Amino acid sequence: MNSFVYDIPVRVYFGENQLHHLGEELRKYGRRVLLTYGGGTIKRIGLYDRVVEELRKADMELFELSGIEPNPRIESVREGVKICKEQGVDVLLAVGGGSTIDATKFMAAGACVEHDAWEFFGADAKPIERALPIVTILTLSATGSEMDSGGVISNPDTQDKLGRLAPAMLPKVSFLDPTLTYSVSAYQTACGAADIMSHIMEVYFNMNKDLFMLDKFMEGMLKTVVRFAPVAIAEPENYEARANLMWCSSWAINGFINGGRKKAWSCHPMEHELSAVYDITHGLGLAILTPRWMEYCLDESNVERYVSFGVNVFDIDKSLPKMDIARESIKRLEEFFFRTLGLKSTLREVGIGREHFESMARKACRYGDIRGFKTLTPADVERIYEMCL
Amino acid sequence: MNSFVYDIPVRVYFGENQLHHLGEELRKYGRRVLLTYGGGTIKRIGLYDRVVEELRKADMELFELSGIEPNPRIESVREGVKICKEQGVDVLLAVGGGSTIDATKFMAAGACVEHDAWEFFGADAKPIERALPIVTILTLSATGSEMDSGGVISNPDTQDKLGRLAPAMLPKVSFLDPTLTYSVSAYQTACGAADIMSHIMEVYFNMNKDLFMLDKFMEGMLKTVVRFAPVAIAEPENYEARANLMWCSSWAINGFINGGRKKAWSCHPMEHELSAVYDITHGLGLAILTPRWMEYCLDESNVERYVSFGVNVFDIDKSLPKMDIARESIKRLEEFFFRTLGLKSTLREVGIGREHFESMARKACRYGDIRGFKTLTPADVERIYEMCL
Repeated sequence: MNSFVYDIPVRVYFGENQLHHLGEELRKYGRRVLLTYGGGTIKRIGLYDRVVEELRKADMELFELSGIEPNPRIESVREGVKICKEQGVDVLLAVGGGSTIDATKFMAAGACVEHDAWEFFGADAKPIERALPIVTILTLSATGSEMDSGGVISNPDTQDKLGRLAPAMLPKVSFLDPTLTYSVSAYQTACGAADIMSHIMEVYFNMNKDLFMLDKFMEGMLKTVVRFAPVAIAEPENYEARANLMWCSSWAINGFINGGRKKAWSCHPMEHELSAVYDITHGLGLAILTPRWMEYCLDESNVERYVSFGVNVFDIDKSLPKMDIARESIKRLEEFFFRTLGLKSTLREVGIGREHFESMARKACRYGDIRGFKTLTPADVERIYEMCL
Repeated sequence: MNSFVYDIPVRVYFGENQLHHLGEELRKYGRRVLLTYGGGTIKRIGLYDRVVEELRKADMELFELSGIEPNPRIESVREGVKICKEQGVDVLLAVGGGSTIDATKFMAAGACVEHDAWEFFGADAKPIERALPIVTILTLSATGSEMDSGGVISNPDTQDKLGRLAPAMLPKVSFLDPTLTYSVSAYQTACGAADIMSHIMEVYFNMNKDLFMLDKFMEGMLKTVVRFAPVAIAEPENYEARANLMWCSSWAINGFINGGRKKAWSCHPMEHELSAVYDITHGLGLAILTPRWMEYCLDESNVERYVSFGVNVFDIDKSLPKMDIARESIKRLEEFFFRTLGLKSTLREVGIGREHFESMARKACRYGDIRGFKTLTPADVERIYEMCL
């Protein structure tokens, strides 16, 4: 059991009608705010007007950058950095899902350095020591970016999609209002659920023994998503369902569940290569990959983890033989993703063939074999992609 | 479901061999440190010498206040305040369990005001707006004071034992090294386990509907304590057991599990009156009270909570009639406290008779009826005390 440091100083306003705290929180950092968002959703649901009204009441000076795309690109980051520098922005306000928040984090960091923001990524990445303060208003429960210090950015020129963590990019404050996710489509709700579950499973499936208490918390969150994602899809304005998904999205990845576990994640690097080349929704890619990865890794040495997962998340009868429980747990996860949530189940269905598997597998292992639950070489990754066809 | 603010900016160094970070953390706040502790335990286990050595390496100037008692008294707080003021202390370092940490919090707050520290308590309590920074090193898993902003202080002159919360008193940093609890006796380990469970159950038994995800976390922590407290008693140097109890102690009361639940706690105010008059161990008082309180409150309107508790914490067969599950859950809790943990089961066994029940019940309701899981009047409290005889 390894030692660890717990340090998550994000303040979260959770629930409806908390937005009147926005002005007071932003004003702690100055007057000049850069508002970042994606498409028209925040205008359609009336959130844009509410935010602008709060900023006006707090006498903030507003700059805007809209059009941040899903799988956000380095070009958007560069635009944001330019505005921050030219306008002397004091604080960034990201309104949206993980893509907007991720991009905003690197704008905040890029505003504090002279070099290009893409130099924060890759093998010889530049350090991220400072960032302008970031406040977020979340509109999609999925990535957990609202309460963690990481982000993932795509570079279409190099077909790279790379992640980076840095404590300086941790949001100061995040507003989590479940009602802001009422308009999220069934498809995006399903992809978000898969993303949340993957964040938990990347840690849960780990051969490092760690705190039982954290295993129980992970199983509890997985059960919560399994229970409430279908409710949110069937009844988009069910507050209880949206609230549970939202708080799980933050706690799946804010670092608490890690304890002292230090193993690499497996499905995320494999998925990033898929969405770097094909621009598929991140959560969908994870849903397709995860059960196949579980199947590929299963053996006598690690079967106990699958048993705990199956018994405690899917209530599989614990008196069955262990291997049967393990296989059943994979089947139940597939049923959940592909039947209950209605996600497509193969790469072929989303228009992806094997033509780039070799290069994607190589890139997924760009820093060496993936030393996660089970060590994966490029050849292993390629075989897992094949299983997803 | 109510809204809430989540804000726990305590940095925690968890695990063995983290104490080399002590100097760097303290130095953020200045050079003059007041070290507070209780009896001789920290010297006996070698912790005192390790701390002093770290302070020396960081070139800190050391002041000391030892002898802080269990159920800490206002007089200790006053002594600490005096040292802080006279010596211009920059930061307080509490080394011990909840009593030492609680007392230290009010020293830190008292050092910032002119009035007597007892004026922080009671109906006309003075505000706590500032406090000197506090760092803690935990040696007992129980109260959770290492990660919350509250504390409880006794005043023998008035036979009062009163609690107070204030964000300013939240520790900046806490060191949680499970090996520092290896020498905790079986009795204190048992009392600590009861205290942790009570903190969770005070929130879990609540008629406000809140996040399912948090219910699952609470059940997971309760299961963790039920599993590992007996292990820690049987094998005092079992790291896994001590680590699980320690991290549960913090998360049982740091505010996370509350979500939007705002109901009053029930067993704690009843217990505080017991230990104000009789000076019994807080956790033992809670262990005696909790099953009787559950029995007193149980009815058709709230039976579902007992069912969830019994099924998810004690694995009681969920196909049984609800009332049977509820009663069985109380029985299982009693067995756990009084047989597995070996705690005394009645007030009479610890030398407490009914002579002060009426006045203690009145004091437990000093701010009005206890509006918790079930509203309790002074007459109800008295009847619950009677059930504990």
